[in-house]
Amino acid sequence: MAKKITNRDEDYSQWYQDVIREARLADHSPVRGSMVIRPNGFALWENMKQALDTMFKDTGHENAYFPLFIPKSFLSKEAQHVEGFAKECAVVTHSRLQSTNGGVEVDPDSKLEEELIVRPTSETIIWDSYRNWIQSYRDLPILINQWANVVRWEMRTRLFLRTMEFLWQEGHTAHATQQEAIEETERMLEVYRTFAEDFMGMPVIKGVKTESERFAGAVETYCIEALMQDDKALQAGTSHFLGQNFAKAFDVKFQDKDGEHKYVWATSWGVSTRLIGGLIMTHSDDQGLVIPPRLAPTQVVIVPIWRNDEQKAEMLEYADSIRNELDDLDISVKLDDRENYNPGWKFNEHETAGIPLRIAVGPRDLKNNNVELARRDTLDKNIVEREGLGERIDNLLDQIQQDLYNAAKERRDNKTTTVDSYDKFKEVLDEQGGFIYAHWDGTAETEEKIKEETKATIRCIPLEEGESGTCMVTGAPSEQRVLFARAY
Amino acid sequence: MAKKITNRDEDYSQWYQDVIREARLADHSPVRGSMVIRPNGFALWENMKQALDTMFKDTGHENAYFPLFIPKSFLSKEAQHVEGFAKECAVVTHSRLQSTNGGVEVDPDSKLEEELIVRPTSETIIWDSYRNWIQSYRDLPILINQWANVVRWEMRTRLFLRTMEFLWQEGHTAHATQQEAIEETERMLEVYRTFAEDFMGMPVIKGVKTESERFAGAVETYCIEALMQDDKALQAGTSHFLGQNFAKAFDVKFQDKDGEHKYVWATSWGVSTRLIGGLIMTHSDDQGLVIPPRLAPTQVVIVPIWRNDEQKAEMLEYADSIRNELDDLDISVKLDDRENYNPGWKFNEHETAGIPLRIAVGPRDLKNNNVELARRDTLDKNIVEREGLGERIDNLLDQIQQDLYNAAKERRDNKTTTVDSYDKFKEVLDEQGGFIYAHWDGTAETEEKIKEETKATIRCIPLEEGESGTCMVTGAPSEQRVLFARAY
Repeated sequence: MAKKITNRDEDYSQWYQDVIREARLADHSPVRGSMVIRPNGFALWENMKQALDTMFKDTGHENAYFPLFIPKSFLSKEAQHVEGFAKECAVVTHSRLQSTNGGVEVDPDSKLEEELIVRPTSETIIWDSYRNWIQSYRDLPILINQWANVVRWEMRTRLFLRTMEFLWQEGHTAHATQQEAIEETERMLEVYRTFAEDFMGMPVIKGVKTESERFAGAVETYCIEALMQDDKALQAGTSHFLGQNFAKAFDVKFQDKDGEHKYVWATSWGVSTRLIGGLIMTHSDDQGLVIPPRLAPTQVVIVPIWRNDEQKAEMLEYADSIRNELDDLDISVKLDDRENYNPGWKFNEHETAGIPLRIAVGPRDLKNNNVELARRDTLDKNIVEREGLGERIDNLLDQIQQDLYNAAKERRDNKTTTVDSYDKFKEVLDEQGGFIYAHWDGTAETEEKIKEETKATIRCIPLEEGESGTCMVTGAPSEQRVLFARAY
Repeated sequence: MAKKITNRDEDYSQWYQDVIREARLADHSPVRGSMVIRPNGFALWENMKQALDTMFKDTGHENAYFPLFIPKSFLSKEAQHVEGFAKECAVVTHSRLQSTNGGVEVDPDSKLEEELIVRPTSETIIWDSYRNWIQSYRDLPILINQWANVVRWEMRTRLFLRTMEFLWQEGHTAHATQQEAIEETERMLEVYRTFAEDFMGMPVIKGVKTESERFAGAVETYCIEALMQDDKALQAGTSHFLGQNFAKAFDVKFQDKDGEHKYVWATSWGVSTRLIGGLIMTHSDDQGLVIPPRLAPTQVVIVPIWRNDEQKAEMLEYADSIRNELDDLDISVKLDDRENYNPGWKFNEHETAGIPLRIAVGPRDLKNNNVELARRDTLDKNIVEREGLGERIDNLLDQIQQDLYNAAKERRDNKTTTVDSYDKFKEVLDEQGGFIYAHWDGTAETEEKIKEETKATIRCIPLEEGESGTCMVTGAPSEQRVLFARAY
């Protein structure tokens, strides 16, 4: 069989496209920059959603749904917000088409009085509602999350990583005090870290963004940053402390216990289908997709092998007993009993699709009371006893989850460098890339200079404090090293 | 406390609005015709989604996600389809805003080459993908469902029942043969019937639409029709047999086992947040919302009552033991231990929100080892023993579910009339409304005449066949009675 996936070291970008195509995760759509998320990709997203949604609910949040369209005037109510989002948005201007010869055209009579923006994010439409919902301190906090599609008119797009339309969740909370809002911002960042590391097996650094990288309208943007296999960074989730900016823009006040009317404090936080891109680039290899067991829609696939009808009946019975045992242990298992495909083709398909474990059973395995067990992550194959298989697999799935995280962490740590001079910084960046910790004087000018000269950006100011020093570029004092990388 | 909900017999339409507002299900949004689905409304929708999604997956379907935007030219590829949807759609024409003095305006330089339509339904964009996915009979059937938002530019809107943007699911399947596609259409109609009756407690009639009421692009539209408390009908779900219309429009062929290239057969089927409107108008009363237990986000609320701190500690402990017992039985239970509200206020809030069962416990109940149990549907209150409470409640929730369905069915049956003459038809329609079975000659002319003269439409031609006769208007022969009603 011809190899359909380009090697990573040959063409990383092509490899990424190939993995997605061969695992049938997504397609490019005829609308430039949009994607079709295919069933395999969507099942992965459903598992990610499920895990996140449970964590959101466990921390007291409820889901709601706000309109897709935002009146144009809403966007401009918060000065920084409109700066950040007006330049890349889809604008609805008409409400009707009319027939022409052989086609349709926009009916000019249906022009809207006020244009509508397809939401790039929902702070404005949500805070307009919050004004009606909040009167008293008794109405606070409001802890709401929304699962939704959003649109940002991107010029250079890439499946999952950057698309015009993407799926995400956006949390929007309202609090009586600044401290509560900051605690919420940090709590949700920690939820994201937990999800990235414990479910995705993707180690991340927690930090805050510099002013120039902050969300438009935020007082502080917290983030988690991961390192991909090509040694570029990926921003994997953000949690914003919005201060009273949106409360002031939308005039949202509450009467406090002391009788005074005060502006409400806000947060917002989100992760998106971009995480699927991060997952692919953290674990997958030249054979295709690798999915960590905790997020795998199918954790184990069983491929029975037979040559004639008699064998077929026996093998299906054997395979079925295994399926039932795994089912009972709440392991997600699929029995691949398709007739029209040979075992080698099936093996390849399941490998390409990233199913963590494959069990193959043929007549000899049945006779010896064995199965062949193949790990997707290491590609190791072993003959193991049928007896006790369920428990073995249960443990093995945990082991794979842990191994994937450990491998990713080791890779990241090996590509993380601490430097003291700008020359060394540039050398490391060009020779191995990865994360670089370096001192910075805290000014936007120096940040911009480094970005222009090296294409590296400050990914975050890590929450974990480091030692003080002097800026590698200007020599001015620096409180702690910050995290640099070239990024997606 | 002033009554906040208008009585049904006073102003049904206002009653509907009041129920939604007081149960905090949804708000009107500042974008005309759009709604905000509040946490209480969304939790209900999540439960509906969960139940439907499980049934879709049990019948072999997978979820996927297709783009929000559809190129204008796609809409016109299927001639009837564009007729049906071009007149009421949101059109994206630009991709950027620019700053003006104190605001933003559409940047004329960002005009799109081809306008994009915000999906009113996704047949066209999906069949464009299916062309790439289908080559051989081995690729069939494709059984895909999508949960999404869609937009139809409605002029007269009503929360849940008819909104510009709504949430729904749309199944889109592709089959090798006509028979398989028809079986799929009917299978999904039966899934909808099961959901409506067994989960929503809303009895429905299964049938097919007349040609004039058919989905734009369908060969046959199947539907389920329910009767609301104001004796008007509600179309609650549709399942379309699309023939080869979309396969031909998008040139989707497959190589069959016999080597021949054939057009693919299609279905599509959907239900939406409109069902929430149907649920409200089936069960709710002058006290507010009533939710059937199987869909209730909270099935049981416990309100402990105390006068001092000592009682409080005792009552919370008592309430907590009840909560734990119900939790263990997988009953969704909430303990309302809020300090700032008195019991009467809480009772009213939970009644208005439609929680099926309320347990109140005060010091006397503790002493006597009792609880007060109140049913939302009947408003009955009873003192019952603490011993065996979990099992009693488990059974009672089933009983309430059944009672709600039975009551709705009895109401509907009482408002279903069989008539033989057009005079009687008009008399019944004006005096009691409801469903009317009558003979019709099968022509669009007669259907239109009846609609113009009485505002009643043919809701469906029931699948359950009836006796033949003669049309009540023209006297021409009729194979079976069809179902008429005034409808939402």
